[in-house]
Amino acid sequence: MLKATIKPILTLLGAGPGDEELISVKGLKAIKKARVILYDNLANKDLLSHASPNCLCINVGKRYGGKQCSQEWINEQIVQSAQQHGNVLRLKGGDPFIFGRGFEEIEVARKHGIETEIIPGISSSIGVPSVAGLPLTIRGVAESFWVVTGTTKDGNVSSDLYHASHSTATVVVLMGMHQLGRIVETFTLAGKEKQPIAIIQEGSTTKERCVIGQINTITRLVQEHRFSSPAIIVIGEVVRHARESIRNVVAVAMDGVKMEVDLHTTEKKYEYTLSGLSKT
Amino acid sequence: MLKATIKPILTLLGAGPGDEELISVKGLKAIKKARVILYDNLANKDLLSHASPNCLCINVGKRYGGKQCSQEWINEQIVQSAQQHGNVLRLKGGDPFIFGRGFEEIEVARKHGIETEIIPGISSSIGVPSVAGLPLTIRGVAESFWVVTGTTKDGNVSSDLYHASHSTATVVVLMGMHQLGRIVETFTLAGKEKQPIAIIQEGSTTKERCVIGQINTITRLVQEHRFSSPAIIVIGEVVRHARESIRNVVAVAMDGVKMEVDLHTTEKKYEYTLSGLSKT
Repeated sequence: MLKATIKPILTLLGAGPGDEELISVKGLKAIKKARVILYDNLANKDLLSHASPNCLCINVGKRYGGKQCSQEWINEQIVQSAQQHGNVLRLKGGDPFIFGRGFEEIEVARKHGIETEIIPGISSSIGVPSVAGLPLTIRGVAESFWVVTGTTKDGNVSSDLYHASHSTATVVVLMGMHQLGRIVETFTLAGKEKQPIAIIQEGSTTKERCVIGQINTITRLVQEHRFSSPAIIVIGEVVRHARESIRNVVAVAMDGVKMEVDLHTTEKKYEYTLSGLSKT
Repeated sequence: MLKATIKPILTLLGAGPGDEELISVKGLKAIKKARVILYDNLANKDLLSHASPNCLCINVGKRYGGKQCSQEWINEQIVQSAQQHGNVLRLKGGDPFIFGRGFEEIEVARKHGIETEIIPGISSSIGVPSVAGLPLTIRGVAESFWVVTGTTKDGNVSSDLYHASHSTATVVVLMGMHQLGRIVETFTLAGKEKQPIAIIQEGSTTKERCVIGQINTITRLVQEHRFSSPAIIVIGEVVRHARESIRNVVAVAMDGVKMEVDLHTTEKKYEYTLSGLSKT
């Protein structure tokens, strides 16, 4: 009996922002038929339970500050796996073409004659605020949004943040928690120390939490409530407008309102107007 | 026998960019259990075939230039349907919180004591370029992207476009085809007449087509190939870098390369260097 010829294919798949069920129908089908899955830490691991029993699942995750697989090594795995096993799935958090190195992986595959397919995912930049009840655009309030990364090639916050701080766009910063000081500084220098800001940690998962403040209160909020990565930072007037619609808020510190909420009892611990801040 | 009490719920659901299978697993479940579906023209109609046989499906679509349902009428339908039938699904194209009036609908529901849930979708702004092979960010090329609407409250292109044209961000314009002249003018005034630009029409569907040009060639390309709404406009250096990875390209007109492709035969009609344009 002849062995079927192996046809190497790379599918680049976005798993969405965290909630397992936010993967697309097409994406779930791709997981089921993959022979090899190379997955990131930001993709929901529970999705791997849908893989075929004889599918090889390899963690190629890189986390900020943690142990890393080099991109070169990942590229090699893609090419070798596709040539040996055929159908390789590269599973990434969010959308595979936003701030990942998905495009480099597609280029490497193409150079080796490997067929490629891209299945987009819900980017955390949009999906996390949406599911939490925070729209990035509201007619007449913000009619554009700008998505910036906190972690660029050289490890700094993107220089685009300077332009963003001077615009009227809603600004979304991904992977920016370790750069929060610099973000606050940039907006303060732009004269926007009272600009509303929300930080959503582990959005769309059961651990989702949110703090809402202003540029001049957010650092203290983050420290007091021990917020850390992975988190999405949203800066702009939309935060003020949508404040009462946002879910899983643990604390608010804005001109005119200060509030803390126990998420387990949903009891609001205290709420009062800050006399010293209410002069806007 | 007592009639079960009706619990009014509004679920705001994003259907994704066009391809039926790009809806989320959670979104498909919500369609199956809805009692009433109020759907937009931009959502894929085939999704309605998954609705329960006794689900009431109502088109509340608004198209640019076409007959419109007023937002007030839609809001009334939401409240009445939820109160009469319980589980109401508001099905929108893309993500329900991006340039739609989803937030207003959530607010109306909350004011009437209707429970709300938001299920994000793949926004066309990210999903259409991704699935076509065009990344909005590439490390070292573009480390942010700015999404602007071509149709604001007052019918003009967003004034944010001016700021965007001066930034280094990849600029994505949604619903901007009827404003293309003004977009070209804005980028030309910013000294960016050679900035690469791609337009993807009916992205992620079987009718997907793309033209690739520069600010100073795109108007002619659009006219020659009769591009129209719905389409996504992407402006930035990422277009140049990803040019050979983008699928369903019918024509290219950039410095150094001019090409036309017959999508049925995939035959490249001609390809040559424009001597007059190749001096960049």
